[in-house]
Amino acid sequence: MSLLIVGSVAYDGVETPHGKVDRMLGGAGTYIALAASHFTKVKLVGVVGDDFAAEDEQLLADHAIDLEGLEKVPGKTFFWAGVYSENMNERTTLTTQLNVFADFNPKLPESYRDSPYSFLGNIHPNLQKQVRDQMTMPRFVGGDTMNFWIEGTPAELKAAIAQWDFILINDSEARELSGENNLRNAAKRIQEMGPHTVVIKRGEYGAILFRPEGYFIAPGFLLEAVFDPTGAGDSFAGGFMGYLTEQGITSLDEATHAHLRKAMIYGSVMGSFCCEKFGVERLRGLTRDDIEARYQEFKAFTEF
Amino acid sequence: MSLLIVGSVAYDGVETPHGKVDRMLGGAGTYIALAASHFTKVKLVGVVGDDFAAEDEQLLADHAIDLEGLEKVPGKTFFWAGVYSENMNERTTLTTQLNVFADFNPKLPESYRDSPYSFLGNIHPNLQKQVRDQMTMPRFVGGDTMNFWIEGTPAELKAAIAQWDFILINDSEARELSGENNLRNAAKRIQEMGPHTVVIKRGEYGAILFRPEGYFIAPGFLLEAVFDPTGAGDSFAGGFMGYLTEQGITSLDEATHAHLRKAMIYGSVMGSFCCEKFGVERLRGLTRDDIEARYQEFKAFTEF
Repeated sequence: MSLLIVGSVAYDGVETPHGKVDRMLGGAGTYIALAASHFTKVKLVGVVGDDFAAEDEQLLADHAIDLEGLEKVPGKTFFWAGVYSENMNERTTLTTQLNVFADFNPKLPESYRDSPYSFLGNIHPNLQKQVRDQMTMPRFVGGDTMNFWIEGTPAELKAAIAQWDFILINDSEARELSGENNLRNAAKRIQEMGPHTVVIKRGEYGAILFRPEGYFIAPGFLLEAVFDPTGAGDSFAGGFMGYLTEQGITSLDEATHAHLRKAMIYGSVMGSFCCEKFGVERLRGLTRDDIEARYQEFKAFTEF
Repeated sequence: MSLLIVGSVAYDGVETPHGKVDRMLGGAGTYIALAASHFTKVKLVGVVGDDFAAEDEQLLADHAIDLEGLEKVPGKTFFWAGVYSENMNERTTLTTQLNVFADFNPKLPESYRDSPYSFLGNIHPNLQKQVRDQMTMPRFVGGDTMNFWIEGTPAELKAAIAQWDFILINDSEARELSGENNLRNAAKRIQEMGPHTVVIKRGEYGAILFRPEGYFIAPGFLLEAVFDPTGAGDSFAGGFMGYLTEQGITSLDEATHAHLRKAMIYGSVMGSFCCEKFGVERLRGLTRDDIEARYQEFKAFTEF
């Protein structure tokens, strides 16, 4: 089984209280794919410019990520730069240069179309829908979105979400999408829009899984130092979906609550690792033993 | 075994998006005592004015709270009023009238002095120290404080805390007291000030227990509606200490990590109930079955 991932592949400039990197590999698609690659084979759909470095392509290939769907076109790769506040709870965007991403028109290679699993990273909802519509046997499809689409293209977003089995968004977005301040009520409204399974991310406080039969709270890992939170939510998505794909869950009905709870913890594990170094640095060096050790740490600090 | 509690006994005026109550029984000492009374016998030290209603005294007595240490003096009872923001994450104080509380000079009745357990609610650190110094066989003593004392009387506060076995404060106060933004580091600094055991409350996100041998994260309960968060932190303290007193833990060394983890959950249970109605209304009507049922709910939404 393999996991189809769609999202931005980009270069990022990031400044945090721990340092500054002018240009490094980034983008939601990159973080999701790298995190998921520790669990399953990944097929990546995205677009980069002709400035995309051979070493970055090699990094993805080294993680057995299938790059047939990663188009390379003339022009520059998507570039984003931002700076984090002293406590890292806020971030200011310095520049967003869409470049080749502005004309991104995702087409699934023939070999990708029968993937039953897909995670649709945060892009224009019409593009998310376009990818979903090209899948010939979708069984377990979910995605992420953001306030920009909730406010700017609500009808398109609702049409996309209506096809999803699950959605993974942060708490402020869940409140905005649902119009409900209380998270239990927000999750109910979102479930009515389509996805049976709603995962609400709460940054350093962890994440909550809402299912028709109940909910599960995963606390955030207490890092000794957060070097760079960029990509933590996408790494969560990669761990969550990567684990479920590895388990061979072919539909949401087959996924037990136990599977989903473990997936929440693996998501949290990957999100926590992501913050420990700049960019994708910590994700690339991980072993499965590192991941399992941190999973056991989660058990140790939550059991009673 | 019984638990000695010191803190304000007051009248509160509270407005939340769910309604408004002009005057009702409140105060940290009241919330801590009522929450703890569901687990153990409580001895309350505080002061009220001659306007303190017979029915409020009766309410405390009905929970088997020993009121020998609750002085009644001429004048008015401490009055506080505040209004909560729409999402209830912020609160504005409208008035604080210390009244008889301004001259509070806690004296322990003879029958209170040999209590091995005490929780010192948030009052002037000199008064907290005065109470601790009157205890003849203190075994397990902790307390709460706030930014007002951290900023205004730091030397007195440090002298008080140095005698404590544990401290229970919220996250912003832990950061201010320690000068550390990262909570793991903040807890380490605070442990160096005296208390082996540090409990950091995070409001709706739950609480973290830090011990020399490791930490434990208790998530916040997801309420369907928060009517009035006043007293939730104090109710947590009451549940936490009440459970440990009930278990007959006579020193921190005897308290296993398992005991303390359960105490964290009972604290969270009492804090969650507190928010479900205005003032102390929900705490007074609880049964032990209600408490155990919610404890099991915590197990259900955290196990993986």
